[in-house]
Amino acid sequence: MANFKGHALPGTFFFLFGLWWSVKCPLQRTWEKRQPGGKQQMPKFFKRIDLIEGVLKTFFAFVGIMAEQFVPDGPHGHLYNGGWIKLMNWQHSTMYLFFGISGIADILCSFPLPVPAGLDRLSLSLALFVEGFLFYYHVHDRPLLDKHIHSLLLVAVFGGAASTMLEAFIQDFTLLELFRSSVAILQGTWFYQIGFVLYPLNGEEWDTSSHDNVMFITMCYCWHYAAALLIVGINYSVVCWTTRRLRENHRPNIEIGLRKTCLTDTSSQKALLQESDEE
Amino acid sequence: MANFKGHALPGTFFFLFGLWWSVKCPLQRTWEKRQPGGKQQMPKFFKRIDLIEGVLKTFFAFVGIMAEQFVPDGPHGHLYNGGWIKLMNWQHSTMYLFFGISGIADILCSFPLPVPAGLDRLSLSLALFVEGFLFYYHVHDRPLLDKHIHSLLLVAVFGGAASTMLEAFIQDFTLLELFRSSVAILQGTWFYQIGFVLYPLNGEEWDTSSHDNVMFITMCYCWHYAAALLIVGINYSVVCWTTRRLRENHRPNIEIGLRKTCLTDTSSQKALLQESDEE
Amino acid sequence: MANFKGHALPGTFFFLFGLWWSVKCPLQRTWEKRQPGGKQQMPKFFKRIDLIEGVLKTFFAFVGIMAEQFVPDGPHGHLYNGGWIKLMNWQHSTMYLFFGISGIADILCSFPLPVPAGLDRLSLSLALFVEGFLFYYHVHDRPLLDKHIHSLLLVAVFGGAASTMLEAFIQDFTLLELFRSSVAILQGTWFYQIGFVLYPLNGEEWDTSSHDNVMFITMCYCWHYAAALLIVGINYSVVCWTTRRLRENHRPNIEIGLRKTCLTDTSSQKALLQESDEE
Amino acid sequence: MANFKGHALPGTFFFLFGLWWSVKCPLQRTWEKRQPGGKQQMPKFFKRIDLIEGVLKTFFAFVGIMAEQFVPDGPHGHLYNGGWIKLMNWQHSTMYLFFGISGIADILCSFPLPVPAGLDRLSLSLALFVEGFLFYYHVHDRPLLDKHIHSLLLVAVFGGAASTMLEAFIQDFTLLELFRSSVAILQGTWFYQIGFVLYPLNGEEWDTSSHDNVMFITMCYCWHYAAALLIVGINYSVVCWTTRRLRENHRPNIEIGLRKTCLTDTSSQKALLQESDEE
Repeated sequence: MANFKGHALPGTFFFLFGLWWSVKCPLQRTWEKRQPGGKQQMPKFFKRIDLIEGVLKTFFAFVGIMAEQFVPDGPHGHLYNGGWIKLMNWQHSTMYLFFGISGIADILCSFPLPVPAGLDRLSLSLALFVEGFLFYYHVHDRPLLDKHIHSLLLVAVFGGAASTMLEAFIQDFTLLELFRSSVAILQGTWFYQIGFVLYPLNGEEWDTSSHDNVMFITMCYCWHYAAALLIVGINYSVVCWTTRRLRENHRPNIEIGLRKTCLTDTSSQKALLQESDEE
Repeated sequence: MANFKGHALPGTFFFLFGLWWSVKCPLQRTWEKRQPGGKQQMPKFFKRIDLIEGVLKTFFAFVGIMAEQFVPDGPHGHLYNGGWIKLMNWQHSTMYLFFGISGIADILCSFPLPVPAGLDRLSLSLALFVEGFLFYYHVHDRPLLDKHIHSLLLVAVFGGAASTMLEAFIQDFTLLELFRSSVAILQGTWFYQIGFVLYPLNGEEWDTSSHDNVMFITMCYCWHYAAALLIVGINYSVVCWTTRRLRENHRPNIEIGLRKTCLTDTSSQKALLQESDEE
Repeated sequence: MANFKGHALPGTFFFLFGLWWSVKCPLQRTWEKRQPGGKQQMPKFFKRIDLIEGVLKTFFAFVGIMAEQFVPDGPHGHLYNGGWIKLMNWQHSTMYLFFGISGIADILCSFPLPVPAGLDRLSLSLALFVEGFLFYYHVHDRPLLDKHIHSLLLVAVFGGAASTMLEAFIQDFTLLELFRSSVAILQGTWFYQIGFVLYPLNGEEWDTSSHDNVMFITMCYCWHYAAALLIVGINYSVVCWTTRRLRENHRPNIEIGLRKTCLTDTSSQKALLQESDEE
Repeated sequence: MANFKGHALPGTFFFLFGLWWSVKCPLQRTWEKRQPGGKQQMPKFFKRIDLIEGVLKTFFAFVGIMAEQFVPDGPHGHLYNGGWIKLMNWQHSTMYLFFGISGIADILCSFPLPVPAGLDRLSLSLALFVEGFLFYYHVHDRPLLDKHIHSLLLVAVFGGAASTMLEAFIQDFTLLELFRSSVAILQGTWFYQIGFVLYPLNGEEWDTSSHDNVMFITMCYCWHYAAALLIVGINYSVVCWTTRRLRENHRPNIEIGLRKTCLTDTSSQKALLQESDEE
């Protein structure tokens, strides 16, 4: 869908997923730290969240495929009729298909099935790789700025694919998860930027052959990433600070309870001490 | 062998090997899980399977070399006579040679010899790398579509080489083995696709300079991979489900046997419990 | 700032940081070894050093941004006025911005906050990556030698980004830290070299299209690196030798003390023996 | 030195080093296995071998630098005289310089000094990288075949640099050491091949613009590697087989000795049993 909406839609999805991951990651880490004895099995709560995430991803992918196929000027499921029909829409559908596969992998991983470890991450990495792969051959024979602004997107896409691939091997490594969040947000906002530049809302066309525009866009890309880092940093801090607050509010009640019953349970006190040490 | 058969033959081999690996991998993993006390030495059964695999690989490689040399229009072992003779056939023979070396490494690894760990994986990785290396310089001076369809193959070849190289370091990592299966299947089906496109059976030539054809082929490549993922997923699920079934069918008999003899062997009960937990 | 000073300033910063890291790294390692029982929590002293390093980095980045913006021929904070204003200065400001972010990450890591492990290294790696990324698109449409001398810089920049990225995963690996020092020094001296070549102080212009000059500059780059390795090696040796000396000077006093009081404390003797073994 | 000798000399050095490594590696591994209780500190014998290797490397590098400088048509230490003097020889000297640095690092690592772990491997990796880096810019503006035959060399050089870099992180991994041996042998024989092709001894010039020659040379490179693998395989097998033989010849005497003295030392018998299990 070569218009502003066609870039805003995937942009919104990536932005929301990036935002959500930057909240989920510190939540999970905090939960793990609270458990005395270090990292343990994820509770059912997080498994359910992963399930919902997978279902949403699959649903969005399905919606994306349907939208690309059945928009008024779409191919409506026809592929060949003397010549190839609307290959752009078919390529976008293919991208959505792999995100759908990634969603299904998420769903499978959230159930207690004997799926291989890291399947969800590898399938997300593959989805990002396929997206980048198709974009790479997508942008030939276009004006300079159009080509450049799309190839900058590839940096985020392949960067995300590589870091998510690493996550399949190094699981629950906070930094990688936050990095994934940040490049997802970057991808999201950059899709919007592409929309603003190529299909300007105020009608003022950009000069797509100007070298100065290319230089500005390159720099602008870095600003987007700085903003993405800021967002991830704020989310991480807020979640950490909030969960810490909640625990502090809960603790006095427990201590009062302990005093009232005059029971000194050493094991729970130890846990409390451990919590204080960690903070 | 620049015809349909010349692409169908290696395609068949890669497809069958990919298919076989996607069955062998979950079989091995299930066997390991069944053993109380976690991962242990592979039993003789799997060592023998590896031996057969190695022998087959070496045999196919030998057949491939012979076929490339002694087909009617082959070089019949002659290399130079004023000019180089049938270099294409010689290059294909060289590719087969390295798969033969990989087969020999498999055979060596299946015997209790002091071979360095990961030799079989590294040699397979080298064979794939050499295949990709020769293909890379193979496709110069060809029409656009011919070049593109061969360079897409390189993605599967080098992807397989890289993941198999990783397997030499991270052994028995299910995800990597399944990934290897999937790219092998992809390579297999893509060889067929190359055959269909460049030497169409129905005689309708493809326009090898059309940009639309290139775009379709790029997308088609992703569909092949989606199909490969589906095949690997189905094989994995069927093997896991079947082995679980077989175990469940065996268990009641054991329990009946236990009741009859009124013997309560704690260690075997523990193993049963452990099995139930895992499922 | 396209003049000698504009290259000397960042060169000085990189050189000083490289020099400082090549001193800090062996200091930390020696301190760790001295502790009986191997690696332990860094003492407050090193945490404070990291804090100062972070503050300095942030300060220098701020100064850099201000300098690029408010030099007489700078953009003074204006970005667009019919056309883009002084994009070079804006790009340099962007580079400094990411080093500022890296400085803030250093500061956060030096406090006992629940920041994810390796944040300081990843953010430094990102700063270097952004520097390389902007330089990469910086040097189009320039004479051969200008282009070449800047792309050689990219080898140090991306090499540093990659090794620092690795440090986020493999923490406290001496070799990686020394490598980072060496490429920082290389970058520093190379910035000076660029300044000398493109804005010669004695006024003798270099022929920027000569292939011989390109060949010399390539070789010269290796000499810079050999010099950087020499500097790092000397610093490492001097620090190791000095700390060893200091310990040896302290030890006799302890031994005399032991003899005087005639107390044979086995645990402290063990620690002494352990130290002798290590040396 | 652009003649046959100039390629034969480095070729001989690389070939001999590759050959030596393929013998040293199984020797070390066998020694480690013989020790009851698995891997231990290397004995002084291996430390001394490493010292000799380092001294030889440094000596050869010194000889190489001197030869490049003081051959009759060399620069004799002069670099600039209105124009750059004999840059080719200076570049070769620079390559030798880094192998000299690597030799010095080997020497340092063979002494009980507090050098960072993996220094010898990293410095070898850097030497190979610098070699490849200089070769990369070396081969511009040359005929097709000349360019191609040199860029094939880069595959071995950068492959070796990458695997040796890995060795700095994953120490004593047999497969990586054997791989290093094989690419060193490949580099050695390929230097000879370059000599034979560009400066043919029988005077028959190769057509340096023929695409067929390029195709043959590409394939020939793979044959060289197959030969290198064969050599490494044979050396590994011979060393393993010989050390096993030697141990078997020693054992009966020990057993006879045990019978004679009628002493049954359980610990030595255990060690013997352990050896039999391993074989």
